[in-house]
Amino acid sequence: MESLRVALGERSYPIHLGADLLGRPELYRPYLGGGSAAIVTNTVVAPLYLQRVRQALAAAGARVTEIIVPDGEQAKGWETLERVFDGLLAARCGRDALIVALGGGVVGDLAGFAAAVYQRGVPFVQVPTTLLAQVDSSVGGKTAINHPRGKNMIGAFHQPRAVISDVATLDTLPERELRAGLAEVIKHALALDAQFVQWLEAHMSKLVSRERGALVHAVRRCCELKAEVVAADERESGVRALLNFGHTFGHAIELGAGYGAWLHGEAIAVGMVMAAELSARLRLLAQGDVARVRQLIMSAGLPVRGPALAPEALIELMAVDKKAAHGKLRFVVLEDIGRAALRGAIDEREVQEAIVAAAQ
Amino acid sequence: MESLRVALGERSYPIHLGADLLGRPELYRPYLGGGSAAIVTNTVVAPLYLQRVRQALAAAGARVTEIIVPDGEQAKGWETLERVFDGLLAARCGRDALIVALGGGVVGDLAGFAAAVYQRGVPFVQVPTTLLAQVDSSVGGKTAINHPRGKNMIGAFHQPRAVISDVATLDTLPERELRAGLAEVIKHALALDAQFVQWLEAHMSKLVSRERGALVHAVRRCCELKAEVVAADERESGVRALLNFGHTFGHAIELGAGYGAWLHGEAIAVGMVMAAELSARLRLLAQGDVARVRQLIMSAGLPVRGPALAPEALIELMAVDKKAAHGKLRFVVLEDIGRAALRGAIDEREVQEAIVAAAQ
Repeated sequence: MESLRVALGERSYPIHLGADLLGRPELYRPYLGGGSAAIVTNTVVAPLYLQRVRQALAAAGARVTEIIVPDGEQAKGWETLERVFDGLLAARCGRDALIVALGGGVVGDLAGFAAAVYQRGVPFVQVPTTLLAQVDSSVGGKTAINHPRGKNMIGAFHQPRAVISDVATLDTLPERELRAGLAEVIKHALALDAQFVQWLEAHMSKLVSRERGALVHAVRRCCELKAEVVAADERESGVRALLNFGHTFGHAIELGAGYGAWLHGEAIAVGMVMAAELSARLRLLAQGDVARVRQLIMSAGLPVRGPALAPEALIELMAVDKKAAHGKLRFVVLEDIGRAALRGAIDEREVQEAIVAAAQ
Repeated sequence: MESLRVALGERSYPIHLGADLLGRPELYRPYLGGGSAAIVTNTVVAPLYLQRVRQALAAAGARVTEIIVPDGEQAKGWETLERVFDGLLAARCGRDALIVALGGGVVGDLAGFAAAVYQRGVPFVQVPTTLLAQVDSSVGGKTAINHPRGKNMIGAFHQPRAVISDVATLDTLPERELRAGLAEVIKHALALDAQFVQWLEAHMSKLVSRERGALVHAVRRCCELKAEVVAADERESGVRALLNFGHTFGHAIELGAGYGAWLHGEAIAVGMVMAAELSARLRLLAQGDVARVRQLIMSAGLPVRGPALAPEALIELMAVDKKAAHGKLRFVVLEDIGRAALRGAIDEREVQEAIVAAAQ
């Protein structure tokens, strides 16, 4: 087992990384202040891992409640959140109960937001079981649910007490979700680390075929990059926004296609191509580098073209996105491979052209 | 105008206190980062003060949206919160929009919670228009909505950027609400300041007849006491819990009577009598001091006896309350007039006896 640390003063926490971790009682014990714990998971993950986590918590001395929610992005709304609250209240969980988020990004965001607002905040631990969650969403304390008018519109910054990333759980991950997770791996590299881009170009086939050594390297590198960015900018007022590379376009694609039709990672993959094309239009990135972005995404088996939506419709879907400041759209662009930057007041025509170019 | 300061490091903020403040543009201008503002108010307050606040914000350069919610404790739930989100999204409010909470405790808690979680947190200003809100709920950053199984079950700590307490708005406050606000004034005094208790015993009739000088003194003293406590313990892990004096009983009364049947202050008034009786049973407080508590509450025209609920039913309604830690009920008791303390692991029989004694 390796452990990294997200340095956030009194809110600092460890990321434990390795195989067969989620059944270890000692990883949960430090956070069981009140003796009760609630595992939030979904119908797909529960049959695979719930029992091991429950046994580990029980062995650590906890009274354990289980709250099982539906699978999928559609579950990331108020209705499911209410079920989590109902479960916590039925089990009489107090302010010192520990919430354990066992699952992918949806479960982590939902359970994390529940932990952020239940009785004005209770502790929680992330146990991510998808590649996307292990490399991205479980680290950094961003929690949220969706609103019909926008993704992650209602949420909070609420740091976990620990992240337990068990790479053995990736063995059971469906092919399509593995690839969606690779989109976030690629994002970290393109936005922050040119050397990691080169490594990915050399090792993508090993990641796709789930070689454990390659997966561990990729998860660790993403967590290192993300931990550094989060430590520098917890509430996303600056550098952390760079991790939204591809996300302004991507969120609009998810919204336009209807939540759940596209996986988050798939939408982000296309969003990164659009953002790269936009960067080229702004004369920041060479067209050859755009081709390199496209090639890397394709090598992971990810889409590079979006759903059939008019560019104007896509732009309309962006306008209320969190990247909007002072009423103007801003985008994360690439100044080079491995170097993202935030640019504001971008001409809408250039955004349209980028969307059209990405569809070629 | 007087200004106090709540000292919370980078989250510090001023409380402005005086007459005819809510129409002053300069009090809002510092917080209009993005140029847009949303006033959240209710159907009772809107006809009285909305126009003046809107004009002040417009004069300060803001694009202003209005979100008017129903009046009353029943409005403090998810359904109303959704309307606030809808209004913010319809007006395309971004992360830098300012939310202005114009109204009493319900509007402040609701709008404050909306501000805490909309796009993971936007700035807000409290403009309390009831005595209860001016002396208590607008200061300190506690925001929440109710859940059918418990009051303030879903919420967040989210500090306002400023509190604008315009005592002229108390002129339009219904008699019953003025008295309910006096319950929180009495609470501050009984929990924290014996001298203030004496002052209240001498000046209660002036407060009931709304003499402005007396009101200003009471609001200022409560804000001073609360600002000190909040600065010492923002997230209520210690001394701040003392401000919950009477609230464990009071919340159960509100819940048992059905939200809205009793005003919060009325339930807290009875809750304080019960908590004083409990303190006497624990041999902390002399029976003569219990009589003094009862007398002070009666002098404000507040109830000292609860609704017709069996003691067991009332205790059952408490068990999931936030004051529960490690599965045991805790209570804020009085060790003396003006000196509250937190006591845990209290025998249920003594709680029952206190409830019975309070009903005599």
